Amino acid sequence: MSKPKVFEKPIGVRDYLPNAVAKLRRIEQNVLDCMRRWGYEQIITPTMEYYDTVGVASSTSDQKLFKLLDPRGTTIVLRSEMTSPIARVAASLLKERPFPLRLSYHAGVFRAFEDEAGRDAEFFQTGVELIGDSSSEADAEVIALAIASLRAAGVPAFKVAVGHVGFLNGLFQEALPGRTEEQEALKECLLQRDHVGYRQTLSRLSLDDQVRSELEGILRLRGGAEVCEQALGLSASREAQAAIRQLCEVWDVLGAYGVQEHVLIDLTMIGDFSYYTGINFEGYASHLGFPVCSGGRYDNLLSQFGRPAAATGFALKTTRILEVAEDDTPAEGGRTLIVYTHEQRREALQEAERLRAEGLLVVTEALDAASPEWGGLRERAARVETFEHRGADYDSLLVYGVGEEARP
Amino acid sequence: MSKPKVFEKPIGVRDYLPNAVAKLRRIEQNVLDCMRRWGYEQIITPTMEYYDTVGVASSTSDQKLFKLLDPRGTTIVLRSEMTSPIARVAASLLKERPFPLRLSYHAGVFRAFEDEAGRDAEFFQTGVELIGDSSSEADAEVIALAIASLRAAGVPAFKVAVGHVGFLNGLFQEALPGRTEEQEALKECLLQRDHVGYRQTLSRLSLDDQVRSELEGILRLRGGAEVCEQALGLSASREAQAAIRQLCEVWDVLGAYGVQEHVLIDLTMIGDFSYYTGINFEGYASHLGFPVCSGGRYDNLLSQFGRPAAATGFALKTTRILEVAEDDTPAEGGRTLIVYTHEQRREALQEAERLRAEGLLVVTEALDAASPEWGGLRERAARVETFEHRGADYDSLLVYGVGEEARP
Repeated sequence: MSKPKVFEKPIGVRDYLPNAVAKLRRIEQNVLDCMRRWGYEQIITPTMEYYDTVGVASSTSDQKLFKLLDPRGTTIVLRSEMTSPIARVAASLLKERPFPLRLSYHAGVFRAFEDEAGRDAEFFQTGVELIGDSSSEADAEVIALAIASLRAAGVPAFKVAVGHVGFLNGLFQEALPGRTEEQEALKECLLQRDHVGYRQTLSRLSLDDQVRSELEGILRLRGGAEVCEQALGLSASREAQAAIRQLCEVWDVLGAYGVQEHVLIDLTMIGDFSYYTGINFEGYASHLGFPVCSGGRYDNLLSQFGRPAAATGFALKTTRILEVAEDDTPAEGGRTLIVYTHEQRREALQEAERLRAEGLLVVTEALDAASPEWGGLRERAARVETFEHRGADYDSLLVYGVGEEARP
Repeated sequence: MSKPKVFEKPIGVRDYLPNAVAKLRRIEQNVLDCMRRWGYEQIITPTMEYYDTVGVASSTSDQKLFKLLDPRGTTIVLRSEMTSPIARVAASLLKERPFPLRLSYHAGVFRAFEDEAGRDAEFFQTGVELIGDSSSEADAEVIALAIASLRAAGVPAFKVAVGHVGFLNGLFQEALPGRTEEQEALKECLLQRDHVGYRQTLSRLSLDDQVRSELEGILRLRGGAEVCEQALGLSASREAQAAIRQLCEVWDVLGAYGVQEHVLIDLTMIGDFSYYTGINFEGYASHLGFPVCSGGRYDNLLSQFGRPAAATGFALKTTRILEVAEDDTPAEGGRTLIVYTHEQRREALQEAERLRAEGLLVVTEALDAASPEWGGLRERAARVETFEHRGADYDSLLVYGVGEEARP
């Protein structure tokens, strides 16, 4: 194996330069502040967790976990998501706090990818968990907050697709009883959003005409409230019918929040079936092929940490949002350059202090009185509104020294 | 090896609950904003770096690095500090940007500890690097900014001890020429701040009386400008003399900044000699036995990344500062609870939306009209200014439903 070159970094990680950081920090702050106003309190958990606890409980598949050994030889993982760590905290440090718990976070998470096709190995997520409330009001609150958060992040146009894992579970069990492998093959197509593959898989199966038509009909179950009506007609499965009724309730509450225009009911949507237990959802920004937000109900996780509880939540994919968010924050205020000779150092540095106390950005530079740079610097500053000096832009020059007083 | 219990986390890492996070975030924001006003631009680098590049270049000893293998089998480290990653960025992505570069960061860093004596394995640092400026003005700027940052963080009382690695290097080489092991033994005592051990080690060495008295005299070299005078008399070594002259210059510039009252010249202070190349410093808060800030000049690091440059910087130990900082931010504004029956859901949720848009914190809860909780809740809210509901405190109750209008 050849050594990495000295300026290289591991595959799938990135540096954020100042402009990107400024935008990322504004998104982070606006979204966390939005969550705060909905009553969600921020927590921070460690980057490293035990594999046997949080690692195993997380929804991330084993081969995507970064693993290392601690000095005792116990396997540690870099957290791959924040829901499991928060479940751990809810069941330990916060175990005396009554439900519901409303918690928020902004954190880097880690995924090891065996292929190296430009997937992120480390990225930021900003999200919430609402723990200890099994109601449809809670499902709707979390979806409405996801919408408010995407707005706060500056995502210009988006839709949140809402589904329910119980509908497809019920439907497939009714239509293909005991044919687990075939059910899995169809679900895998839906998970990949591969509708062509779904139809091809269906066409290879031996099925009644009516069942085939039912299973094909799933692909049309995307839209507004009318989808629920269609879905109720499609399956007599008790589990599927209960799922649809829950979805209708959530749709109603979303109407009360006034956010239905952002919501699409999508019964073809599949999250991770082994993890989600009810309503699940994904947010899509216009012109982006991947979700910018995902979430749903996970009523089985907390019991793994010894405090059984219903729970729902979501995570914004903040690193992706950075690429699509509109940033209407005005460019930061003026940048002042103070140049001084040694004789006037005290006056110059005290003025810098005064201006910084007012919130201004001030860079100071000592320049020898005999330096030939004085002329060029003055000329540049006089000629244009913004001038460039040593690779940085300034819009104000103060000069201390070389026979003159401070000059704005 | 027994499995960790389900609620356990790895040794040396911690969870931050909401109150601690709120304080930590205020410190982070105030310090980064202070650095911004001094012209420092924030960057973010990945948690994982190659061992052979950033890992080897860092000042952290090898056995304190957390290591793992990437899918290709290359050794990765969790960053142990931010100076080396920033040097990598300065020499690669920012290589076209002229010097000086002023960069800031807030980041979690990682140290593996073989003993488990309560040392942090993951902690936050907030700091700056000033790259491409070898002047004493640059040394002083970074010390003055460290002082401004400790103030911004809310550290109530502190001193910054400033030394110079060249003084002790020069003095020891002059006093103990070629006796490297003895030099190292004495330096190790100073590094541990073990003055008793230093005197004992000295007493065991075979030395001229004059040299012995010189080496004992070092321990008294702590104070104001007078220390420089004393030090100049103590050693004729060219390196030591040059170091003292630089220290005097920096002291003068710190006078111009008006911050000498926070500064202590301490020629007994030793940072990492293999890393620092000139002025180095540490900040101490009153009543704390460990530094809350450390920094200095490291003119040899950038050349390891192919862009030789003088550089200086510091890091606040933000996790430690969290324990000592005074937090005079007023408690966050009012918390409002809106309780509603299903019939009045729309009015209630719209009012929540309106109040949140004004910046208020609002939690909503649907309550069945027949619930016995209504009475108790109303009574609690009427009785005291702040009332408790499901473990959270509120100071305002709005009720929608059960035969009445909204009631503040």
